[in-house]
Amino acid sequence: MGYTIEDLLKKINDEIDNLDITGEPGELYSPVKYSLKNGGKRVRPLMALIACDMFGENIDKAIPAAIGLEVFHNFTLLHDDIMDQSPMRRGKPSVYKKWNTNTAILSGDVMFALAYQYMLKTPDKNLKRILEVFNETVIQVCEGQQYDMNFEAISNVSEAEYLNMIRLKTAVLPANSLKIGAIVAAAPENEIQNLYLFGELFGLAFQLKDDWLDVFGDENVFGKKTGGDIIANKKTWLYIKAFEMANKDQIKKLKEAYSNRIQHPEEKINIVKNIYIQLELNKLAISHMEKYYQRAFDYLEKIKIPEESKSNITRLINLLIERKS
Amino acid sequence: MGYTIEDLLKKINDEIDNLDITGEPGELYSPVKYSLKNGGKRVRPLMALIACDMFGENIDKAIPAAIGLEVFHNFTLLHDDIMDQSPMRRGKPSVYKKWNTNTAILSGDVMFALAYQYMLKTPDKNLKRILEVFNETVIQVCEGQQYDMNFEAISNVSEAEYLNMIRLKTAVLPANSLKIGAIVAAAPENEIQNLYLFGELFGLAFQLKDDWLDVFGDENVFGKKTGGDIIANKKTWLYIKAFEMANKDQIKKLKEAYSNRIQHPEEKINIVKNIYIQLELNKLAISHMEKYYQRAFDYLEKIKIPEESKSNITRLINLLIERKS
Repeated sequence: MGYTIEDLLKKINDEIDNLDITGEPGELYSPVKYSLKNGGKRVRPLMALIACDMFGENIDKAIPAAIGLEVFHNFTLLHDDIMDQSPMRRGKPSVYKKWNTNTAILSGDVMFALAYQYMLKTPDKNLKRILEVFNETVIQVCEGQQYDMNFEAISNVSEAEYLNMIRLKTAVLPANSLKIGAIVAAAPENEIQNLYLFGELFGLAFQLKDDWLDVFGDENVFGKKTGGDIIANKKTWLYIKAFEMANKDQIKKLKEAYSNRIQHPEEKINIVKNIYIQLELNKLAISHMEKYYQRAFDYLEKIKIPEESKSNITRLINLLIERKS
Repeated sequence: MGYTIEDLLKKINDEIDNLDITGEPGELYSPVKYSLKNGGKRVRPLMALIACDMFGENIDKAIPAAIGLEVFHNFTLLHDDIMDQSPMRRGKPSVYKKWNTNTAILSGDVMFALAYQYMLKTPDKNLKRILEVFNETVIQVCEGQQYDMNFEAISNVSEAEYLNMIRLKTAVLPANSLKIGAIVAAAPENEIQNLYLFGELFGLAFQLKDDWLDVFGDENVFGKKTGGDIIANKKTWLYIKAFEMANKDQIKKLKEAYSNRIQHPEEKINIVKNIYIQLELNKLAISHMEKYYQRAFDYLEKIKIPEESKSNITRLINLLIERKS
C-alpha cells in the first residue's frame, strides 16, 4: 500500500527493461524487444497491480501476471497491425512494416508463448484460476478482432453489435487485468465481479473516447493526423450513430464518402466530420462516454474497501478518460 | 494397459470429433474445425497417451494434454503454411489459401489459446510442470521455424545447424509429447529424461525420412509429386550433404539449379536428384536415419519397465520410420 501510480509504472517499466530477451535466433527476438521496449501506457499491467494493491496484497505477487498481460497486449498489436495494414505504431514503423509479415507472425507467436511463460510465474495458490481467466480473455480478444474484420465488409452494423465487438476486442482485457490482480489478492468473489464489471464499462468508455479522438482530437496534442478511422472506412460508434440519425441527404453523402469514390482523403474526412457535427455527434459521443464512465463508477462504489484504497484506480481512469492523445 | 495403437487412435479421433468448436463468430471457428477435423496421423497425442500407458497410469488423465498437443500442432501448420506459402495441406487447400492470410493468422491465434485451454484441463497434480514443458516446447518450435526461414536466405548452412533447426522445429514436440504423458503418469525422473531423448532422436530420424521421401518417395504411394523441397530451394540434409561431398562440377550444377535460373521444375529436380544419386545420398540418408533410429532405441532400452509395456511405442515408431508417405 501507499504506492502512487508513478511508483507502479516505474516498477513495470523497470521489470520490462530488465526482461532478458536476448535469445537466439536474433531475427525472432529483436522484434519482440522492439515491440515491448517501445513505450505504451502500460494500462493493463498498471490495472493488475492497482487491483492487487487495492485489496492489501503485496504487489510483487501480481508482477508476473502484470508483465504477462502487457506482453500479450503487445503480441496482439503485432498481429492486428498485419491484419489492419497499420504501418505505424506509437510513432514508429509497426513490426510487419519494419521487418516483414512473416516476422510479425512468428515473433508475435513467440510473444504469445512468452506471455504465458510470465503468467506461469504467478504464485501457485492462484495460478490455475488466473490462467483460466487469462486464456478466456485471449479467446475473447480473438473473437473481437474477427468481428471487427467482419464489420469492414458489411454495411449495416447495429450499435449493439458494435458495442459487443469493442467489449471483446478492447474492454475484456483491462477488465480481466483488474480481475487477475484481485484474484492474486484473494479478494472476495463479489468484489472481484464488481471490479470486472467496472473494468468492462470503463473499457467501453475508453474505446468511445478513442473513436472521438480520432475525429475530433487536437492534432497538435493527438500526435498524429485525425480522420484515420474515416480514411480506413472503420465502422466506429460515430459512424453507426450517424447512420441511425442522419436524414436522406446526409445518408447519401455518408455512403458516397465511404464508397471510396471520393479521391482526396481530406475531402472525405471533411464531409464525414461535418455530418457528425451537424448531428451533434461530437457532443453526443462525449455524453455517451460519460454515461458508461458513470455506470463503471457505480460498480466501483459498491466495493467495500476504504475510499483511500480506491484513489489509484480512480486517478488512473480519470487520466485515461480525460486524455487528449 | 492393454490398449492397441488403434484403440488409442480411435480414442483421440473420437475426442476430436466431439470437440465443441461451434463458437461465434463462425468466420473465426470454421477454419479451426476445418484444420482439426482434416485428419493427420495424430502422432503427438498418440505419443502422450502411449507414454502415460507405458508407466501404468489411466490414460484418461493424459487425454486433455494429448488434445492440447494436437491442437497446437495444427495451429503451427496454419501459420507455417502462410510463411512457407504452402497452398496444400493433407491433400486439401491450406487455410490461408481456402480463406485468406488474415483468417489463417487469427484462427491460428485462437487455436493456440484453445491448445492451452485443453492443457489446462490436465489434473492439478501435474498441471504446472506440464504447462511449463508445453510452453518451452512452443518457444522452441518458434525458434526452429525462424532458423528454417533464415536458412532460405543463406547458402552455407552446416549439418550441425541444420540438425539443430530440425531438432527445434520438428523433434522437440513429439519428444515433449512423450515427456508430458510420462509426467502425467508420475514416471521416475530419469525415465522421463530417457523417454525425452528417445523422442528427440526419433524426431530427427523422422525428419530425415521426410526429406528422403520428398525426393526419392514413390509418387504413387507418396500421394503427391516428389521434388517439392528442391523446387522450394529448401536446405535439407540431402542438399547440405551434397554440398559437402560434391566435386567442383557437381557444385557448379547444384548452385545453378538452386539459383532459379533453370526454368523447368522437372529439369531442376532431375539435375539435383541425379547428383544426390551420384553421391549415393539416397542410401547414405537412409543409413544416417537408421543411426539416429538406433541411438533412439538405446534410450528406450534403458527404461526399466517390462518389455511388453514398450510394444506400443516400438510399433508406432517402426510404422513411422517405415512409412512410404
